[in-house]
Amino acid sequence: MTIVLHELVGADEARPFSPHCWKVVMALAHKGLPFERKPVCFTQVPGVEGGVSKTVPVIRDGSQVVADSFMIAAYLEETYPDRPSLFGGDGGQAMARFVEAWSQSTLHAALNVIALHEIADRLAPEDQAYFRPSREARLGKTFEQIAERRQAEIEGFGAKLTPLRVMLKSQPWIGGSSPLFADYIVFGALQWARVVSSAPLLEAGDAVTDWFERCIDLHDGLGRAVAAAG
Amino acid sequence: MTIVLHELVGADEARPFSPHCWKVVMALAHKGLPFERKPVCFTQVPGVEGGVSKTVPVIRDGSQVVADSFMIAAYLEETYPDRPSLFGGDGGQAMARFVEAWSQSTLHAALNVIALHEIADRLAPEDQAYFRPSREARLGKTFEQIAERRQAEIEGFGAKLTPLRVMLKSQPWIGGSSPLFADYIVFGALQWARVVSSAPLLEAGDAVTDWFERCIDLHDGLGRAVAAAG
Repeated sequence: MTIVLHELVGADEARPFSPHCWKVVMALAHKGLPFERKPVCFTQVPGVEGGVSKTVPVIRDGSQVVADSFMIAAYLEETYPDRPSLFGGDGGQAMARFVEAWSQSTLHAALNVIALHEIADRLAPEDQAYFRPSREARLGKTFEQIAERRQAEIEGFGAKLTPLRVMLKSQPWIGGSSPLFADYIVFGALQWARVVSSAPLLEAGDAVTDWFERCIDLHDGLGRAVAAAG
Repeated sequence: MTIVLHELVGADEARPFSPHCWKVVMALAHKGLPFERKPVCFTQVPGVEGGVSKTVPVIRDGSQVVADSFMIAAYLEETYPDRPSLFGGDGGQAMARFVEAWSQSTLHAALNVIALHEIADRLAPEDQAYFRPSREARLGKTFEQIAERRQAEIEGFGAKLTPLRVMLKSQPWIGGSSPLFADYIVFGALQWARVVSSAPLLEAGDAVTDWFERCIDLHDGLGRAVAAAG
């Protein structure tokens, strides 16, 4: 049966950008499971699957409804153990939580500043009225105050990727010799930036850039199928 | 047969401080393997096991000699598969490389500044003449220039632990429900700081502090057996 993925979009439904939804897209493709992407804009989220979650991604797999990208990956791993593993064992599942914590506290924190206006501009009209006050409340600052930090965050972004850059001296993927969900976690953050923002964040010749290029080619180029923001 | 661990010490052989050696101490205890700690000061390292490595830890296990903390952990995992796992599977082994890269590029980079003078003061006399020019060459700065950054690094250290702090909301160990080598990697950095430095780096009530207290109690209090620098 085809799994339904409820996935965040802006005004252009063909350009999904949510980092957490991208993680799930890659996880479903990694498992080789047939799935259908159902676009949802911010203000439609409360109606998804009877209001099961305040956020997307949400998947429906037959009678099962699961929210939260990590919980979805764990559900897929447990439900489809004979398909390619997303974690490479219990240790890998636990350590993917560390990668998630690093990605969110370091990369997302910066991208929330860098891409804020670009995200707002790409939303559906009904979402724009929701997005600004919601994000200003979450960050405790006005859009204008946040924008003052944008250039510094762009300039500091490359250094934040140092742990990944150092690790890539040992192996080609966070998962080792092939990608695992932990790769998709970091991919999600950088794909979000790639789809919504024109900020120059990845440099040619950097091992992280090479890794990201390999990521967007995975699973028949799922990531590359959405063009970079220009 | 008892495994021999060649472990870095300063003037006081009862206060081993090397983060990489501490990782191996914990890994050997985790595997429940009998081992003997052989103290080595910096200038003795070239003579260890016939000069097999420029650094310690080095272990001898019967006829096998292995250098480098991660390679030692991988060797123990492969050689003693029936004892408690250090990685929790292939994915965990791969992701431990990410944790290592994060710990070294973030925590070690800061601790190399914070603890530099305190390490130098604790070395054996013959090592002191080696240590300063070696570290000044590695860091590209004089001890005096490095010392200028010390206070700022102390003040910024807590924020560098944010990824671990965030992860601890999901689970008590980097390894999940119980510690794995990835925990020992980060423990090694903080135990190094604890043994050599009086800088206040961990705050009471912080989830990272609680995790570290759990770490030094592991394996019959191996970490706690060396008192904190005062």
